Amino acid sequence: MSLRSEILEQPEVLARLIEAQADAAGRAAGALARREVRWALIAARGSSDNAGLYAKYLWGARNRLPVALAAPSLFTLYDAPPRLDGALVVGISQSGQSPDIVRVLAEARRQGAPTLAITNDPSSPLAAEADFLFDTGTGPERSIAATKTYTAQLAAVALLSVALGGGEAERAALARLADAVGAALALEGAIERAVGRYREMSQCVVLGRGFHYSTAYEWSLKLKELAYVLAEPYSPADFQHGPMAVVSRGFPVLAVVPSGAPFAEMLALLRSLVAERAVDLVALSDRREALELAATPLALPEGVPEWLSPVVAIVPAQLFCLHLARSRGLDVEAPRGLTKVTRTW
Amino acid sequence: MSLRSEILEQPEVLARLIEAQADAAGRAAGALARREVRWALIAARGSSDNAGLYAKYLWGARNRLPVALAAPSLFTLYDAPPRLDGALVVGISQSGQSPDIVRVLAEARRQGAPTLAITNDPSSPLAAEADFLFDTGTGPERSIAATKTYTAQLAAVALLSVALGGGEAERAALARLADAVGAALALEGAIERAVGRYREMSQCVVLGRGFHYSTAYEWSLKLKELAYVLAEPYSPADFQHGPMAVVSRGFPVLAVVPSGAPFAEMLALLRSLVAERAVDLVALSDRREALELAATPLALPEGVPEWLSPVVAIVPAQLFCLHLARSRGLDVEAPRGLTKVTRTW
Repeated sequence: MSLRSEILEQPEVLARLIEAQADAAGRAAGALARREVRWALIAARGSSDNAGLYAKYLWGARNRLPVALAAPSLFTLYDAPPRLDGALVVGISQSGQSPDIVRVLAEARRQGAPTLAITNDPSSPLAAEADFLFDTGTGPERSIAATKTYTAQLAAVALLSVALGGGEAERAALARLADAVGAALALEGAIERAVGRYREMSQCVVLGRGFHYSTAYEWSLKLKELAYVLAEPYSPADFQHGPMAVVSRGFPVLAVVPSGAPFAEMLALLRSLVAERAVDLVALSDRREALELAATPLALPEGVPEWLSPVVAIVPAQLFCLHLARSRGLDVEAPRGLTKVTRTW
Repeated sequence: MSLRSEILEQPEVLARLIEAQADAAGRAAGALARREVRWALIAARGSSDNAGLYAKYLWGARNRLPVALAAPSLFTLYDAPPRLDGALVVGISQSGQSPDIVRVLAEARRQGAPTLAITNDPSSPLAAEADFLFDTGTGPERSIAATKTYTAQLAAVALLSVALGGGEAERAALARLADAVGAALALEGAIERAVGRYREMSQCVVLGRGFHYSTAYEWSLKLKELAYVLAEPYSPADFQHGPMAVVSRGFPVLAVVPSGAPFAEMLALLRSLVAERAVDLVALSDRREALELAATPLALPEGVPEWLSPVVAIVPAQLFCLHLARSRGLDVEAPRGLTKVTRTW
């Protein structure tokens, strides 16, 4: 298995997961409705933390559930865990092995808070601490950079959201998700031709907002892991509070700007960055106005609802990083200094 | 007033704030103890958001209060605010003007949650939405890059923590804080000589953990705003989950590594980065083992307790950015494309 084949596998993995985990989502939602859950605490690292960021927006907007991302060191190094009254505590980890994430769930159990694990290994230490388990079931992910397990984690987050409150329309959208991801994979040829322009890129910013704040973070992480580009993710709001100063003529700005609530604001910012600072814009969008603005337009499939579009939009971003790394002669199977299972405290 | 004079003013500003706001902190703590506050939601942008990150660790570790950083777009663009039962909702903003931050507090009021504002303008729209108000009272901050208002926000966060639960030792440490900040300012000469080595730096990473995760974020933001360096902040744990791949021979690694719970782990990581990847290390520390490892050691004053040290450690980092920007011939009073009050949604 190579990184590319794991990327291409995603439609099949998602179709399987959405079918197989629907019952687990229903059971978890039913049980949580009987507990007094007021907020969620999510513990995760790396790509899994970016899936947590998606949950923060999705569960917040669709389920009115406030989400905090855990500071694991409070549970480990400081041995001073916060009180978890009223919390659902969620651990997201491909391997289910990282001791810090396991510790957060173990402490939640000790305090009597309900726990949920989203992991690719149902026999992992993380799964053992979970009252509810979503098995991402992607099969082994051998490449160090997470791809299919990331989209599977997003799908698990979406399944729970729909189980907590959703109707026919939402279930139908979930059922069409694998096809949309398949359509996004068709961008590969265009991406392969486009990356040459960025062969010498050593740094860039990645902009995304709302549901796509997660996409901006995950695209940045893949750029670092695979292509050694120092890429920094921002929401347009945070970007304008300081970091915008780094942007000069020709600076690469990668923007995730699909249809949705933040579209108008994102478009206005991108217009001003192109007109006033002549940035080199890569736009990932299903909207002509955004694509026309870009030196490198990457057209997303149309008709995907905003709340599910992070599962689709990250796919061309993964391909972009894969082919950029290859064009630089880098070994995408063995990024410098990384291991598949990272055990941190 | 120049940026440098605002940096130098900090001991005086902090001494004044700690004296003037002690009563406000006591009143807020008393009132909050009578409400059933289970968690805190903090809304902020830019440097103020980094002060929120300090609160996440400090209130979590010292007061067992879990802290979530708000996603303001849920309140504005998506008009889908989460339920705030059991929350203390905190807005942090120098100007108190940004509509998105004001909106979070207004929604909290609508839902009946207690609200707290930490702002430099007690007549701002943000202050008008607050049940409790901490006036950072720094006097006007004219430079675009926040310095004295950032340390003042940290001090306000610390005051509330001590008012919620602290004894003589903590109050005494607060009373000594301004002197420690004064001692940190004495590093200026050494910093001015050291920055030449980094004149051509276009990118770097900044590492910090636990209480100093906030310092890493704020140092990074100042590097971007003032010196146009693409600096990315990480905890060592997140860094090892992917981004470490960007680091090659001579890559600048700026580390905040004072005494405290994360010291041993940070030191081990820095040792391996120096030994195996020959990074160019700038270390901000009060410990000889860390300073000896660095190409550029910046010695922090000793004897500051870990929970208060973020107020002290950021000061040499501010001076580093100021003098680095000057050595590059940049105008630190007018960073490219930024304005003092940023109104975002």
